[in-house]
Amino acid sequence: MAGRTARRRVLRVRAGNGAVSGGPHESRADLLAVEEPLEIRVAGEPLAVTMRTPGDDIDLAAGFLAGEGVVAGAADIARITLCDENVAEVMLADGVEPPTELLRRNFLTTSACGVCGKDSIDAIRVRAAYDVSADGARVEPATLAGLPGRLREAQRVFARTGGLHAAGLFRADGSLLALREDVGRHNAVDKVVGWALRKELLPLAGCVLLVSGRASFELTQKALLAGIPVLAAVSAPSSLAVELAEESGMTLIGFLRGDSMNAYTGAHRLAP
Amino acid sequence: MAGRTARRRVLRVRAGNGAVSGGPHESRADLLAVEEPLEIRVAGEPLAVTMRTPGDDIDLAAGFLAGEGVVAGAADIARITLCDENVAEVMLADGVEPPTELLRRNFLTTSACGVCGKDSIDAIRVRAAYDVSADGARVEPATLAGLPGRLREAQRVFARTGGLHAAGLFRADGSLLALREDVGRHNAVDKVVGWALRKELLPLAGCVLLVSGRASFELTQKALLAGIPVLAAVSAPSSLAVELAEESGMTLIGFLRGDSMNAYTGAHRLAP
Repeated sequence: MAGRTARRRVLRVRAGNGAVSGGPHESRADLLAVEEPLEIRVAGEPLAVTMRTPGDDIDLAAGFLAGEGVVAGAADIARITLCDENVAEVMLADGVEPPTELLRRNFLTTSACGVCGKDSIDAIRVRAAYDVSADGARVEPATLAGLPGRLREAQRVFARTGGLHAAGLFRADGSLLALREDVGRHNAVDKVVGWALRKELLPLAGCVLLVSGRASFELTQKALLAGIPVLAAVSAPSSLAVELAEESGMTLIGFLRGDSMNAYTGAHRLAP
Repeated sequence: MAGRTARRRVLRVRAGNGAVSGGPHESRADLLAVEEPLEIRVAGEPLAVTMRTPGDDIDLAAGFLAGEGVVAGAADIARITLCDENVAEVMLADGVEPPTELLRRNFLTTSACGVCGKDSIDAIRVRAAYDVSADGARVEPATLAGLPGRLREAQRVFARTGGLHAAGLFRADGSLLALREDVGRHNAVDKVVGWALRKELLPLAGCVLLVSGRASFELTQKALLAGIPVLAAVSAPSSLAVELAEESGMTLIGFLRGDSMNAYTGAHRLAP
């Protein structure tokens, strides 16, 4: 299997150097985050190709299917095998409906002309097996403020390559359940969710998902379909992420930096 | 048409506050980057849905098709119309082959079992209409070092929402040709490339594309298919981005920060 990092010679250049050829620039070894395609197949049919960092690929396939609403728990999957280092083959359990052609092609609606954020939200909510709105989780702001530091501490590859996104799953008391890193943020979340699904931990009631970058609609969708009541991002959420979180009763935290944060939705879960 | 930003009340919370209810936290207005789906159709058939920030949607559709190798210039497109604020309908020129079903579903190969980074590179190189390897562009390191600052200066929305990625197209002398922002970095690049395509500027010989985040395989692919010889990123490239750049003869710069940068490939274009 391909590694998670690759070593490569790189030319370190300083702008003030004058001539590059023969100048005091420096050739040195650099570590890169590995990016390789993973093809996910369901019942022999190609469903998606994602560009990911190798590792935890069975979790990635499971989490991807959870995020699309195809499966909601470990019992929905008969087995996942890697038939090649970059191909994950999924067999669904009897009675689990395979992805439709529209889902395969990532279509939200079939309406003749017209698609909007509200349609996207409705499409996702229809697929969601879990209702996070009644989740009674309470998280202290001081606990939330400590999570980015814990995520960074636990990240080993990021510090070396600067090229990986991270997703961390925490209990409401701040203890870390799982951390995954990937060149794609959606993959890091899929790997965390897939790990939890295979451990039969879905829905992830009472949990907090922390992502290292921004909170998009897609990441909010993935959190919702895993039954996670609190999504926290180090950077900004998008408008549609906030709308989906609000309509779903999820707590969405953005700009979680230092000792402050913005609560966009569900501030009632921020308890002292 | 939906705006690019949306205003929303947000609760600013400080971890040290103690009680949140009744504590000295602050409710205030916050600006969010708008995210809405755009469906791209070719000859009436849905091709893709991308979650993007509204604006420059015709450029986005044109750039998306260029990045997939469906079109290589303005003459390949008969017209693009917005049949709804979130649906772009593309009519290709006579004789231009529409995307195949495999491309529609984003598949790189049809091989029975086995897909790898090299396949991805080969698939992209087959689709590329332009050869950047012979591009004689020369860029001074000092010019490159100045580009992130010029990008930030030219960004109006980012500073307000913290939620937008940027892509800037520059001439080798550092002058700005086009800047676009979006919640998705791939969309920002598609909008820049689509703008250039519709101005009949493809291939973008002698140009530098600067992206605000990391350099992935996908962004490198988009630069290559637009004929851009120099791709620069503020953060790290992935292994496969470097491999594609190397095999294509493109210059790939990463960690462009302050007065220094890493040249991963094509350092011969860094001229004093």
